[in-house]
Amino acid sequence: MTVVVQKYGGSSVADADRIKNAARRVGKAKDAGNQVVVVVSAMGDTTDDLIALAQQVTERPRDRELDVLLSTGELVSSTLLSMALENLGYKAVSLTGAQAGIQTDSAYSRARILRVDASRIISELERDNIVIVAGFQGVTHDMDITTLGRGGSDTTAVALAASLGAEVCQIYSDVEGVYTADPRLVPEAMNLKEIGYEEMLELASYGAKVLHPRAVELGQLYGVTIVVASSFSNRAGTTICKEASMEVRNKVRGIAHDTNVAKITVVGVPDHPGIAAAIFEPLAKENVSVDTIVQNASINNITDLTFTVARTDLPRAMSLMEPLLKSIEAKQCITDSTLAKVSIVGTGMQNTPGYAARMFRTLHEAGINIQLITTSEIRITCIISEDKVKDAVGALHKAFELEKA
Amino acid sequence: MTVVVQKYGGSSVADADRIKNAARRVGKAKDAGNQVVVVVSAMGDTTDDLIALAQQVTERPRDRELDVLLSTGELVSSTLLSMALENLGYKAVSLTGAQAGIQTDSAYSRARILRVDASRIISELERDNIVIVAGFQGVTHDMDITTLGRGGSDTTAVALAASLGAEVCQIYSDVEGVYTADPRLVPEAMNLKEIGYEEMLELASYGAKVLHPRAVELGQLYGVTIVVASSFSNRAGTTICKEASMEVRNKVRGIAHDTNVAKITVVGVPDHPGIAAAIFEPLAKENVSVDTIVQNASINNITDLTFTVARTDLPRAMSLMEPLLKSIEAKQCITDSTLAKVSIVGTGMQNTPGYAARMFRTLHEAGINIQLITTSEIRITCIISEDKVKDAVGALHKAFELEKA
Repeated sequence: MTVVVQKYGGSSVADADRIKNAARRVGKAKDAGNQVVVVVSAMGDTTDDLIALAQQVTERPRDRELDVLLSTGELVSSTLLSMALENLGYKAVSLTGAQAGIQTDSAYSRARILRVDASRIISELERDNIVIVAGFQGVTHDMDITTLGRGGSDTTAVALAASLGAEVCQIYSDVEGVYTADPRLVPEAMNLKEIGYEEMLELASYGAKVLHPRAVELGQLYGVTIVVASSFSNRAGTTICKEASMEVRNKVRGIAHDTNVAKITVVGVPDHPGIAAAIFEPLAKENVSVDTIVQNASINNITDLTFTVARTDLPRAMSLMEPLLKSIEAKQCITDSTLAKVSIVGTGMQNTPGYAARMFRTLHEAGINIQLITTSEIRITCIISEDKVKDAVGALHKAFELEKA
Repeated sequence: MTVVVQKYGGSSVADADRIKNAARRVGKAKDAGNQVVVVVSAMGDTTDDLIALAQQVTERPRDRELDVLLSTGELVSSTLLSMALENLGYKAVSLTGAQAGIQTDSAYSRARILRVDASRIISELERDNIVIVAGFQGVTHDMDITTLGRGGSDTTAVALAASLGAEVCQIYSDVEGVYTADPRLVPEAMNLKEIGYEEMLELASYGAKVLHPRAVELGQLYGVTIVVASSFSNRAGTTICKEASMEVRNKVRGIAHDTNVAKITVVGVPDHPGIAAAIFEPLAKENVSVDTIVQNASINNITDLTFTVARTDLPRAMSLMEPLLKSIEAKQCITDSTLAKVSIVGTGMQNTPGYAARMFRTLHEAGINIQLITTSEIRITCIISEDKVKDAVGALHKAFELEKA
């Protein structure tokens, strides 16, 4: 019998009616003759509410305790979905992360899955149960409860699909799949039928918040076919798999954007070996993720060094940079937090010249100034002013003919 | 080092401020040089809210799933108390029922503790941690989560105190201990300094809702000294132990009352062997607890049989009795749900005659009619009209001079 893994996000189980709706969808998969494993997120804003509760007690809750607290959100939704299935006449059983065999390291609040011991799930499936697993959580070797951090439930679902050899891992949220661009910015944006893991990674990392990159990476590693769809419609959604079919694809698959961007420029840095390490090591140590880095040609051994961080990390980054300026003998730091990224993404680009040029010309013709450029094999990103994002995404969508995808 | 177990009820951890208040109280016990284990109930009305949530999904939630759902309430309060303690500078760690080694049978919703494996608690205490245990929950041999039913957190606390050889088990609620009568009925009621397990059992079973009888029984079995006190005051509360000191005690220790009483009289029952079994077996099978049973002397082999049940069980009891009447060839059933029990309780009574007589005279002089009488070794109970309860308790409190206790 084939195994299907489904994952329902917080908005898909936000209240009793939505849980019943999810139960009907789960039931259909069971009726179709599959063994069904379901992973759930916490209901709606539960996780935020629990964090707020913790902060009423202490400003700095300890990660170990916070993880147990947050893990209760998924226990609640998993038991309710199990009850809703029983109410529809299905046999169902809910399992905690620990019971489902999600074994992690002990990095509380951002634990990594070490292995999945699926024996309990398998025996429940053999008893003809639909198995509901609390997402986002696992257990350490010492039986302490951990949470997996952002994208945790997506990761749980893909990890279970991998270890169960599931035919497909269906990720349900309130989004109908992956689009050629954000439909709120570009009304003509098209829903993609298929997309490759790497393209999805670039799109998801750069602002298309449909599926967490971590889950995509895991899917790629184990070759799990992932379908991203909405639990509120019957549209097929987007299939993420090894290789999108060759014929129907456009070289550029989508336009991503991200407004969580801030730029830091260190001015007047003496250009000697070790200077980059001196700047970036302290940032790395404090978990500030640095994105684009650009160093200008140096004049008289003095250079400027520019990099971007998430805007939400800017205060933390600057608190580290200020004491650093003196020790590296730099002149000053300039920041700009009114920026955004726009990217074109597609595996087809790498062997074909001219994409970058067309992107730059398009932005130029739209009167948009490019501040920084960064590229990967399947992505070209420009940093531009935040207030130009809508114009940029629209112009690029048109230039690369994505409305005809 | 001595171990102290403290238990905080739902009202003592109902919000962030009360949790901080409980944390200060826990901290004091630690400062005094003890190893401290704390058991918590769910915050305020959490358990009722979770049950209501389940009922939005299905009218008959399955016990296994409901237990996981309800167990989250105590996980939340235990982590918050742990955080509050850390915030005050104490080392603390929260444990689930499973982690705390509370091993139960698999009777979901009313599981019994089979054994406590306290090894994890002990190793956390040795690391100088205050250990916060989620009450009301345990785990089966198959690692499934159970809840202990009514009085569950009290039972968790006493079980841990027994297995850790704790010096004392302190039960904190919003009640200042055990009184000679309900202070809402008798303003002169006195707080008892000490009380024996059996007296406490009779008082608690008969309406003094301070500590669940199940926890008292467990305390008696393992000789755990239990202190019942309020988390909102500094009064010493009541110590429940093997034997109250001999000198200071009055023969009658307290007056209990209970208004959750209904009477069923089966009229015109043929008096032959097996008739009682025929009536009470069906009730027992459906978990209807029968209290007082009185059978009148039979005339011409026809008798009347009267018994009491909890008023909340009356509809269920009657739905069983009605089909039964025909099969046992009884005439009819008469019910009365405007009744109450008043009891005098005290170990001193059993060897001293005259208590019953004084009770009956007191009620008679107060113009109160006695409908049924039932006694145990340390208790005499009269069933009276519900509207006479306040008068009865007041008169008995005065007659046995409890205001001078």
